[in-house]
Amino acid sequence: MTDAKQRIDAANREAVGRMIDSLPVWVDIKAAKDVVPGLKPNLILHSGPPISWDRMCLPQRNAVCGAAVYEGLAKTTAEADKMVAAGDIEIGPCHEHRTVGSMCGVTSYTMPVFVVRNKTFGNEGYCLIYENPGREKLSFGAYSDNVRRNLKWVEEVAAPVLLAGLKQMGGEMNLRAIIARALTMGDECHSRNYASTATFAMEIAPHLAASSCDRKEMAAVLQFIKQSDQFFLHLTMAAGKAIADAAAGIEYSSIVTAMARNGVEVGIRVSGLGDQWFTGPAGRIEGLMFSGFTAEDGQNDLGDSAITETNGLGAFAHAASPSLALVKSGHAADGLRFTEEMRAITTAENPNFGIPALDSRGTPTGIDIRKVIESGVLPVIDTGIADKQGRGQAGVGNARVPMEAFKKALRAFAERYSAGGSR
Amino acid sequence: MTDAKQRIDAANREAVGRMIDSLPVWVDIKAAKDVVPGLKPNLILHSGPPISWDRMCLPQRNAVCGAAVYEGLAKTTAEADKMVAAGDIEIGPCHEHRTVGSMCGVTSYTMPVFVVRNKTFGNEGYCLIYENPGREKLSFGAYSDNVRRNLKWVEEVAAPVLLAGLKQMGGEMNLRAIIARALTMGDECHSRNYASTATFAMEIAPHLAASSCDRKEMAAVLQFIKQSDQFFLHLTMAAGKAIADAAAGIEYSSIVTAMARNGVEVGIRVSGLGDQWFTGPAGRIEGLMFSGFTAEDGQNDLGDSAITETNGLGAFAHAASPSLALVKSGHAADGLRFTEEMRAITTAENPNFGIPALDSRGTPTGIDIRKVIESGVLPVIDTGIADKQGRGQAGVGNARVPMEAFKKALRAFAERYSAGGSR
Repeated sequence: MTDAKQRIDAANREAVGRMIDSLPVWVDIKAAKDVVPGLKPNLILHSGPPISWDRMCLPQRNAVCGAAVYEGLAKTTAEADKMVAAGDIEIGPCHEHRTVGSMCGVTSYTMPVFVVRNKTFGNEGYCLIYENPGREKLSFGAYSDNVRRNLKWVEEVAAPVLLAGLKQMGGEMNLRAIIARALTMGDECHSRNYASTATFAMEIAPHLAASSCDRKEMAAVLQFIKQSDQFFLHLTMAAGKAIADAAAGIEYSSIVTAMARNGVEVGIRVSGLGDQWFTGPAGRIEGLMFSGFTAEDGQNDLGDSAITETNGLGAFAHAASPSLALVKSGHAADGLRFTEEMRAITTAENPNFGIPALDSRGTPTGIDIRKVIESGVLPVIDTGIADKQGRGQAGVGNARVPMEAFKKALRAFAERYSAGGSR
Repeated sequence: MTDAKQRIDAANREAVGRMIDSLPVWVDIKAAKDVVPGLKPNLILHSGPPISWDRMCLPQRNAVCGAAVYEGLAKTTAEADKMVAAGDIEIGPCHEHRTVGSMCGVTSYTMPVFVVRNKTFGNEGYCLIYENPGREKLSFGAYSDNVRRNLKWVEEVAAPVLLAGLKQMGGEMNLRAIIARALTMGDECHSRNYASTATFAMEIAPHLAASSCDRKEMAAVLQFIKQSDQFFLHLTMAAGKAIADAAAGIEYSSIVTAMARNGVEVGIRVSGLGDQWFTGPAGRIEGLMFSGFTAEDGQNDLGDSAITETNGLGAFAHAASPSLALVKSGHAADGLRFTEEMRAITTAENPNFGIPALDSRGTPTGIDIRKVIESGVLPVIDTGIADKQGRGQAGVGNARVPMEAFKKALRAFAERYSAGGSR
């Protein structure tokens, strides 16, 4: 028993050490087809753990059908629906393709993705470019001419312009440095990304100007970033995937390497348990509904953006963002409370991500499934609320990862490692 | 007595109300000669209260002489020194010309200044454009070919490019909104200006791209902003002057409308006492010395940047910047402490400048000289430390405005208003 415990503790130190040592850098933008492993023309990726078509929530179904039309796989979303049901269009989780997707997370063949490399370990993570500052978005389950035009603009204008800026700055942007800086500027890096976005704009603007990109397009892209408070989240998410994947697959490690939600179920993955998902029901998100929406409009917990919490950001770093706590509950101290609470279920503090108000104490990092079970403290996810009908973001709040997922994971962990341990 | 007290309280409400109601907007960049009232070709402005040439501190003398050479008034700084002593070159405080200057504050005839208009009250405040991110600067008492080239670049490249961006955005930038935002992003807006600078960059970049300014120059200016963490301070200072001047000249008001330092003396002005200065010795600045400097290298308190504290920013808003407190003392809580302490000597909380960690409670605003005398609490100034030899910024720390200045002011206040009061 002690032997097994020591082995697990050592494996966990290795897993969390890899998270902390990770250095994610933005190195490219590519069409998903050219870089996302296993992607096929008729495969459409979505957020969260795997789910069957008939159980999928409405916004995510709408987004899958929209992407099918966008990719020319179907003429109408109604036709797309039938094709998915018939298996002619396939669906699968982003997370199983080194990719993460915001909210519905729908990512398809031709869409451009940020390529983020973990310089320390060599692996890559991917995430779509932020779609649009408006309310109507594919990522929130809408599809229309307007949505299609915006997606095309990102593909044909924003992507090449951003890439020109990146190349001009030497082909590499240090995302860890920007995230660390943003934590000193009121972002917790999941629901508040204003500081990282402003820092990104300031960093890339001189290089865009020095590049040979079209000047009108440069102006439009800089305006787009300025209007998109959440622009940088998609880089943080791709970075998060590259960090978490580096900590995955370590024998005996009970550290969580993915937490993802599809609006129906939340799934987690554990480093020592490979690619297996352990799921429980997606919870209701408690928080503030935006004007025009009521609590009943909120889709249950949705999106791969909890990759931030998986790596000690988001709700785990909430102490860095009193502003966001104020928006949600009116009490700045709630941010501090979440960060303190998460120390009970994590194994380290990330010295690269210090929180100024806590005298630069690091963000609680590396969720140990044993600690979740023992303490009964469930990971908090600090997240946007999607409207159930696909009308866009309906609010912002906090959700908890269900205990059921951790119980299933611990059972599988005990089964797998009891044979090899001295138990 | 009660009658006089009521009259004073009412006047103070009016003065502080004007500070709070002020809406500073950046509207132009002009050569100082075209906008600063009373400026003459042979008049060189400096920070702080008036001071005779023989008593002026070395960095400020050097800066005045440098400006004289820059303006072609003298061939060498040695010649300039003699000309000032002989009265052929005149000197005077920025503050007496609707202008404020950082550190030495030296401002002369041809130098471009930010023009900031107080939209609520119609008055204007001016401040030089941030000079250079390097260490060697006129504002810190250096003059060389390098300093001259940088000043020329600001005049010939940065100023017209920034102005092109401003015009493209409609000729007006709301500085109050950027300052308010920066307070939610870790700036206290005197010694830390990273968030306001990043926000400024993000705001102006799309307009620069859409303007017809030269593209290479645009790249250089955006790079300059990116490298200049304190860039926005000079806009905050011009805004501060426009705010404080709107609160000046109110009969019976005991509210401080200027606190300025020339390295030898600190001077304050009081709303009900017109343009008169009340001075005391400039204090030592306690804090962190940068690598290569010792405490002995630090010039005593210097610069007009305490216009920020005069309006409830800087040390008064220090609770907004745990990061800066960490740099200076290693304790984030020191930031909170300064803000709490300053409530004892101020008369209002500015609802436009909320501090997130304090549940958006407003910054303590409007220093009442009576409260300073009664409480014995001296205003804190959160400031850079200049090297005595003009080698640049030597550190960052906190200084106090001397009690002597307040005692003199209260004496003058009592003399002036005892006749009119029922005392």
